[in-house]
Amino acid sequence: MSTSAGPTIGEVGEHAAIAEILAVAPSTRNGDDAAVLSHATPNSRAVATVDMLIEGRHFNLEWSSPEEVGHKAIVQNFADIQAMGARPVAALLAISAPPHTPLDVLRGLARGVAGRLDQFSAELVGGDLTAGDKLVVSVTAIGSLGGSLPELTLNRAKVGQRVVVSGRIGDSAAGLALLQRYGRDVPAEFTELVAAHRTPHLAPGRGMIARATGATAMTDNSDGLIVDLTTMAKRSGVNIDLHRDAIAPHHLMVKAGELLGIDPWEWVLTGGEDHTLMATTAEDVPSGFRPIGRVLRGSGVTIDGTPPEYGTGWVSF
Amino acid sequence: MSTSAGPTIGEVGEHAAIAEILAVAPSTRNGDDAAVLSHATPNSRAVATVDMLIEGRHFNLEWSSPEEVGHKAIVQNFADIQAMGARPVAALLAISAPPHTPLDVLRGLARGVAGRLDQFSAELVGGDLTAGDKLVVSVTAIGSLGGSLPELTLNRAKVGQRVVVSGRIGDSAAGLALLQRYGRDVPAEFTELVAAHRTPHLAPGRGMIARATGATAMTDNSDGLIVDLTTMAKRSGVNIDLHRDAIAPHHLMVKAGELLGIDPWEWVLTGGEDHTLMATTAEDVPSGFRPIGRVLRGSGVTIDGTPPEYGTGWVSF
Repeated sequence: MSTSAGPTIGEVGEHAAIAEILAVAPSTRNGDDAAVLSHATPNSRAVATVDMLIEGRHFNLEWSSPEEVGHKAIVQNFADIQAMGARPVAALLAISAPPHTPLDVLRGLARGVAGRLDQFSAELVGGDLTAGDKLVVSVTAIGSLGGSLPELTLNRAKVGQRVVVSGRIGDSAAGLALLQRYGRDVPAEFTELVAAHRTPHLAPGRGMIARATGATAMTDNSDGLIVDLTTMAKRSGVNIDLHRDAIAPHHLMVKAGELLGIDPWEWVLTGGEDHTLMATTAEDVPSGFRPIGRVLRGSGVTIDGTPPEYGTGWVSF
Repeated sequence: MSTSAGPTIGEVGEHAAIAEILAVAPSTRNGDDAAVLSHATPNSRAVATVDMLIEGRHFNLEWSSPEEVGHKAIVQNFADIQAMGARPVAALLAISAPPHTPLDVLRGLARGVAGRLDQFSAELVGGDLTAGDKLVVSVTAIGSLGGSLPELTLNRAKVGQRVVVSGRIGDSAAGLALLQRYGRDVPAEFTELVAAHRTPHLAPGRGMIARATGATAMTDNSDGLIVDLTTMAKRSGVNIDLHRDAIAPHHLMVKAGELLGIDPWEWVLTGGEDHTLMATTAEDVPSGFRPIGRVLRGSGVTIDGTPPEYGTGWVSF
């Protein structure tokens, strides 16, 4: 799992291992039976989501550092909180790890988690550490939804609205394909794509901005552009038509596609894991977003009026 | 893992498997990127906790049904919410399961979860289902803490207070010992002890009652009576002295101890997993609680003034 020297979790024991995590991500709310969260604003509502990551399936320590895994675990959960138009405020971190896991792996995970939490002024308020055969990381994210505007759901895309996104589309999948081919030796020119997979970017506040400026529906690109927007189209009873030019693979993705013999449109349409926020709005394009399509009468997702060439996405089974 | 016939998760796929869980534990809050919780009372605060359960380590499908595992997963998390003096309102359920897992196992888990949630008028508001080598269940519980009284923490036991508990002590450990010896064929006279392990009892409202009637510190007996009260004594800077008569193993535990050749005091003092609420209060004993000791000047936990015979408890590593 790792070549790092130093003691293992089994050697130092549960309490010392937990102390290491708390040292990296301290919080006065952590350490009792449960964590009590204070509300940022009166009458705000709590928002909650969870994701479970399994080593070898959702992450690979051969080419991602523990810190990068921690980073990504927070980003994917905080993207779900932002996708409701809410602000992430706290996380809970449950870890199952084999006793032979180096303490350094746990420290790295905690550093990655703490780094993202800091960026969002959020706190690690609780968790669980237990022995198991595999490294399993389960992150619960909790957000705060203030004000009286409704949350941004999958079922409120409306005919006539623009489809707007904030972030990359397909870059994470391109990075993963490069890592699967080259491991840690991906040619340097593709660093940006690899980084998009290992440490996806998520800007704080984007979800709240979209909600405040008139977006009604929102989700994030986690399982694949077409899959996730198809869910939105279905729940909303609309057609989502994307502009081919607005989502076309950029220069570096085309180059990576040529090198690997893969059509980069496959990454764009089926990739997922970009955690790009995707919203619909009848108002001006929110700050930090760009338009990629329109909401029309009909069903499903189309590109300039025709069905997408690739439509599958990530499924667990 | 199970002898049940019928399709496996891998055969029906992720979406159908999730649909089965939602059918058993429906909620309008579930199914979007994240769940938005409404507050029971204005300005109440959210309380959150998480536990991860690994098959073969925290539960054993040889002698517990999936439904019992689901039951227990909710009880142990809701006990942590109650231990803050709060009311459990929601749960998130993340499951990793091998593709060959029968769908019936998942249904059973969901039924056990839903049954406990119903008892607390709580909802399953979100989750995650992913493939993995082992069955891993991670439950996040979310509670609501209303009013202006402080939450019940580990560090607020005060000299002169009574120690009061609501629930069994040692029964779960006795039941586990019987299951480890007899598997599914435990003699019928011990059904009550086995049930205490498989489906521990947790009465709704007890945590709020303790907080409302003057308790200041509270925790639950999850890792062992002495271990958990030692944590409270240490954080509070006090001695907790228990009355031997008030915690003595009851008739059935003594009988089980004789049968297995185990001192039943070991179960009482080190057992854990009873999820019995343990509080300290200077006021009248709260409804549903009974006194078992006093908070004194000093440190650690004693029994009638002397150190306990057994003091260890559950540790993960």
